[in-house]
Amino acid sequence: MTMRILLINANSTSSMTDPMVRAAEEVASPGTEIVGATAEDSVPFIDGFYDEALAGAAVARLVLERRGTFDAAVIGCFGDPGLYACRELSDAPVLGIAEASFALAMSLGHRFGIVTTIDRGVPGSIDLLRHYGIESRCAAVEASGAEVVELEEDPVAALDGIEQAGRRAIAAGAEVLCLGCGLMLETRAALEERLGVPIVEAVPAAVTLAENLVRLGLRTSKIRAFQEPATVPAV
Amino acid sequence: MTMRILLINANSTSSMTDPMVRAAEEVASPGTEIVGATAEDSVPFIDGFYDEALAGAAVARLVLERRGTFDAAVIGCFGDPGLYACRELSDAPVLGIAEASFALAMSLGHRFGIVTTIDRGVPGSIDLLRHYGIESRCAAVEASGAEVVELEEDPVAALDGIEQAGRRAIAAGAEVLCLGCGLMLETRAALEERLGVPIVEAVPAAVTLAENLVRLGLRTSKIRAFQEPATVPAV
Amino acid sequence: MTMRILLINANSTSSMTDPMVRAAEEVASPGTEIVGATAEDSVPFIDGFYDEALAGAAVARLVLERRGTFDAAVIGCFGDPGLYACRELSDAPVLGIAEASFALAMSLGHRFGIVTTIDRGVPGSIDLLRHYGIESRCAAVEASGAEVVELEEDPVAALDGIEQAGRRAIAAGAEVLCLGCGLMLETRAALEERLGVPIVEAVPAAVTLAENLVRLGLRTSKIRAFQEPATVPAV
Amino acid sequence: MTMRILLINANSTSSMTDPMVRAAEEVASPGTEIVGATAEDSVPFIDGFYDEALAGAAVARLVLERRGTFDAAVIGCFGDPGLYACRELSDAPVLGIAEASFALAMSLGHRFGIVTTIDRGVPGSIDLLRHYGIESRCAAVEASGAEVVELEEDPVAALDGIEQAGRRAIAAGAEVLCLGCGLMLETRAALEERLGVPIVEAVPAAVTLAENLVRLGLRTSKIRAFQEPATVPAV
Amino acid sequence: MTMRILLINANSTSSMTDPMVRAAEEVASPGTEIVGATAEDSVPFIDGFYDEALAGAAVARLVLERRGTFDAAVIGCFGDPGLYACRELSDAPVLGIAEASFALAMSLGHRFGIVTTIDRGVPGSIDLLRHYGIESRCAAVEASGAEVVELEEDPVAALDGIEQAGRRAIAAGAEVLCLGCGLMLETRAALEERLGVPIVEAVPAAVTLAENLVRLGLRTSKIRAFQEPATVPAV
Amino acid sequence: MTMRILLINANSTSSMTDPMVRAAEEVASPGTEIVGATAEDSVPFIDGFYDEALAGAAVARLVLERRGTFDAAVIGCFGDPGLYACRELSDAPVLGIAEASFALAMSLGHRFGIVTTIDRGVPGSIDLLRHYGIESRCAAVEASGAEVVELEEDPVAALDGIEQAGRRAIAAGAEVLCLGCGLMLETRAALEERLGVPIVEAVPAAVTLAENLVRLGLRTSKIRAFQEPATVPAV
Repeated sequence: MTMRILLINANSTSSMTDPMVRAAEEVASPGTEIVGATAEDSVPFIDGFYDEALAGAAVARLVLERRGTFDAAVIGCFGDPGLYACRELSDAPVLGIAEASFALAMSLGHRFGIVTTIDRGVPGSIDLLRHYGIESRCAAVEASGAEVVELEEDPVAALDGIEQAGRRAIAAGAEVLCLGCGLMLETRAALEERLGVPIVEAVPAAVTLAENLVRLGLRTSKIRAFQEPATVPAV
Repeated sequence: MTMRILLINANSTSSMTDPMVRAAEEVASPGTEIVGATAEDSVPFIDGFYDEALAGAAVARLVLERRGTFDAAVIGCFGDPGLYACRELSDAPVLGIAEASFALAMSLGHRFGIVTTIDRGVPGSIDLLRHYGIESRCAAVEASGAEVVELEEDPVAALDGIEQAGRRAIAAGAEVLCLGCGLMLETRAALEERLGVPIVEAVPAAVTLAENLVRLGLRTSKIRAFQEPATVPAV
Repeated sequence: MTMRILLINANSTSSMTDPMVRAAEEVASPGTEIVGATAEDSVPFIDGFYDEALAGAAVARLVLERRGTFDAAVIGCFGDPGLYACRELSDAPVLGIAEASFALAMSLGHRFGIVTTIDRGVPGSIDLLRHYGIESRCAAVEASGAEVVELEEDPVAALDGIEQAGRRAIAAGAEVLCLGCGLMLETRAALEERLGVPIVEAVPAAVTLAENLVRLGLRTSKIRAFQEPATVPAV
Repeated sequence: MTMRILLINANSTSSMTDPMVRAAEEVASPGTEIVGATAEDSVPFIDGFYDEALAGAAVARLVLERRGTFDAAVIGCFGDPGLYACRELSDAPVLGIAEASFALAMSLGHRFGIVTTIDRGVPGSIDLLRHYGIESRCAAVEASGAEVVELEEDPVAALDGIEQAGRRAIAAGAEVLCLGCGLMLETRAALEERLGVPIVEAVPAAVTLAENLVRLGLRTSKIRAFQEPATVPAV
Repeated sequence: MTMRILLINANSTSSMTDPMVRAAEEVASPGTEIVGATAEDSVPFIDGFYDEALAGAAVARLVLERRGTFDAAVIGCFGDPGLYACRELSDAPVLGIAEASFALAMSLGHRFGIVTTIDRGVPGSIDLLRHYGIESRCAAVEASGAEVVELEEDPVAALDGIEQAGRRAIAAGAEVLCLGCGLMLETRAALEERLGVPIVEAVPAAVTLAENLVRLGLRTSKIRAFQEPATVPAV
Repeated sequence: MTMRILLINANSTSSMTDPMVRAAEEVASPGTEIVGATAEDSVPFIDGFYDEALAGAAVARLVLERRGTFDAAVIGCFGDPGLYACRELSDAPVLGIAEASFALAMSLGHRFGIVTTIDRGVPGSIDLLRHYGIESRCAAVEASGAEVVELEEDPVAALDGIEQAGRRAIAAGAEVLCLGCGLMLETRAALEERLGVPIVEAVPAAVTLAENLVRLGLRTSKIRAFQEPATVPAV
């Protein structure tokens, strides 16, 4: 089965797009084409509510512009900015990488943990868990101290901080960890070895879940919350 | 005490701004100046998640541009778009009109109800209640069938629909009603007479609450969630 | 606009009433008269469920006796004793100082904390948060070790204990603190300087919120929970 | 084993005490003495928050006066007025009849329902369920239309209203019903026949549960919430 | 990529196994082998808690016997009997078809609904939602009146009942529906046409999700809840 | 009043049955006969989800075989395996020892704690609390390090570990402790002395509660969740 998945780098920094695309391609099925796109109206890197507000609008505008060209879309930022907006714009499935990570993590352990970037990101992750109604399944959200901009330069350098945050999450009851940034790449193998728990990478989680929905012929419901917006031109 | 409150019409339709400002001025204390502003990068009227995503970014950009010029700000759309983003941008208090309505309604009845615009807006209000952690205090969210654009033209024409939605909310346990749109103006007196319950108007609720915070010298906390964004120039 | 707010010292110790009234007068609008009253049938100081039960009945009796003489009432004890009883007795708004503190704190930070008096008071605060349905917005309730009777004598002497409790609450996620006793007066400025977070004082919070409700013409709903009691003489 | 259970009629109407005592005696074990007591400082019948505030204080004063004379106490009003206050006053177990009803009902069906007196009592029961943290186990609270004063005169006359309320609760998911008033006596057999579900009578539920605690040597914890009040003379 | 998925018919009726296997094979990726297995110690068809208790043990025994022979396992009964037991027995991922359905449904609509078999199954589904911590995402559980044994004979005959249950769920807020039985086969297309919402079929949902986990190299966490049982022989 | 209570040792180790029966007999009323039974198809000792799955089925089979011979049944394992299954099989009340412990503990302190066996048992207890809908009443679940098999040999040897776990639970807010294993016998008196809080023993709690239900003529509801299974022969 062939399909095209739009993978959106929600940051405006285009150099982040390629690493995400490569991470997606590594796990994509034969026949799946990953189309990377950069949300150029967004902020350079996303580390808080202001950044996410701008990213959300930029992602939505990008999906509006591209709709009709993809079978599913993935928003490549762990805050899932613009997710519900994009669901209104198309009935092709749209996934956030945080939402997808949680969906997989919930099948692998009793409760999961999130290792996020910096301390200011913790409240946003707590809000996201409540937004999805799964707060009781998350044992802890812990900051690694690694900023998005540093992760883009060298994710492996952040490994020790991520490990320490992971240990705190495990001590609080987490049995599986979600890497709370789409750019925490190339760290999974080392972390699994050091921590002894499954590590869910966000972009791969979302890409495989998007493939499922397409393969099953499932599309976003259009009966209430995610109706086409009245303020955009019809396709 | 003199203060300046920035009242943001989160829609890009500038003709909506003046009625909101007048509603605010009617309840403002002597010494309070209401400064209206239109979020020009927003959508013309806000009726869903896509609209709110664009409105949120537009409101945040407006607050960024105006910061330093107000003692408090009020976001004049019942979805509170951009609220947490704006709290990062300034330590002057920023209030959403939904959040403020809920705060007052919770002091007037055992549980409250929300009368929103159209059916597609119901899920957004449910999310908002969960976001603020007060879902158990709301007995029902009911759609009146009145679109924002119609409310702008003639809010009184929507009175019957609002009344019917209010009755359903009361039957479900609501004892006080929040009008779920900043443009449901000039309907309160008629509704209170017809329904026999207190009716909370959103813009007035937020303006008086903003005045309180300024008068008490309370400012947005800057220690974690609402730190200044790293991606904006310092003031 | 002129109005009269009945400020009830829920303790029977009349020497506590004047400091509360002064704290209220400092923030009241021009035209607002603060009328202090002591709940003489109450216990001398309130530090547990038995004390609150007696205080609740005493406050209700006081409001019954005074009804018709005030535009709004404020119950000056952080357990909000008798609050729902008083709402039955009058349609003039009645506020508890805890409830009002929470309403303001929720607009200033992602989650708030409560600094209470002594350890035995912690469960009561947890119950109160659940009673108002806002438990997810409070990161921690921490005891300062200061008893009500000590606070009345010298609130500043309790400053170090309050500061330590505040630090524990902040470490647990609080971004704004509520002072959990109406007598923790004259400590706010020092605490804000030491802790770097906004501090909500309970009596001022409630007085300004009461003014809002009066100014907006909002009155307690009388359709269900807060109907006039059948067992009291009609006004 | 011999024991003495203080059964408190929380209403000041002494004619209600004997029927409660008889209902208790019917289920008490041999060796258990039921000592009836009327809360004379209370209101004549309890139908709202004001009534409960006065009843709570009256019950607490009664328990204070009688402490040392009973092995366990039961508060005979479905709002459990003064329960936590009484737990501070003695380490002999104190039970509310609502709390005890819920404890038994949760063992008999997937979710239970409450048939309360009049509509204004519904919010109080909802609060009580949240107070005990068991709101998810109750499918519905339904008013029968029977006032306490009518139940005292002739509970059987209220049977049809109770039955209709019970049917609504069952339709909403209840599999077992709690009679939400200590005076809904002599109705159980008829209701069980008409409705085909187990009916939990409040006073008998609490009396047997109180016997258990005494027989097991279990006493109220005194380490935090229910410490002896500082404001009462030591025993 | 080749993999072997063990698809367990949790009923002892072996004729149900083949239809499930065919439904799985229709959506499986090239290279995935679906190995059907019947839980022979189970009950013939599962319609309640007793049935699920026996099914759970039977499924666990089957997985114990087969462990080492599969890359992932799927439990083909909507109550997910034995799921956590099986997770202890292997680090190969094990999925329940209900859990997997919920994971997909949550990405397609604001809230989902469950169409279950008969009325007695509703409480079990409510429990399952709470067990997974996602109760706030489900708008309604509605019974179609179709018994498992009837669905096995002719699922299409149950179409009208399923449709009516679906309509009730949609009216209660559901935007996407989960078919609450692994044997509601061949009904999806007709239901999507009649109801206009996406319909999630349970077995296909779980099979594709199982493939994801295997493809991503994710295995069940073994650090706490799902450690190898002490009472079984090591592999 | 005479009655017969079936006390089920859910482990297959028959030597555990007699100590449980003796613990039950010590608290049973005159006229109550305790009939011990061993779930011979179960695992030797229960320490996880797999063990509980097998125990649940074994307990259900035992109750099926014995139904008609008892007035109430008690499942003697703190995970309450098979509880809802057994409720379907009989309208004689069936109690789990965990459920019964929680019911009593909730009347003795503001929040309770659970001292369980080993760390892997903690998630199961958390699930159980959510299953019963009482998670907010439990302050902590703490592992003592004592395995079931060790407790059977010498419960007193586990005393120090139980005490330490108890202290952690108390520090986290527990005011009363539930011993989370039916074999933590002969430790209560020492623990109460060391910890100064009431200690609820599981088997005695359930036996007295079962007596109550029988004495009050209360039987399991049969209208929905706990209907007779379709797959078992009628009595």
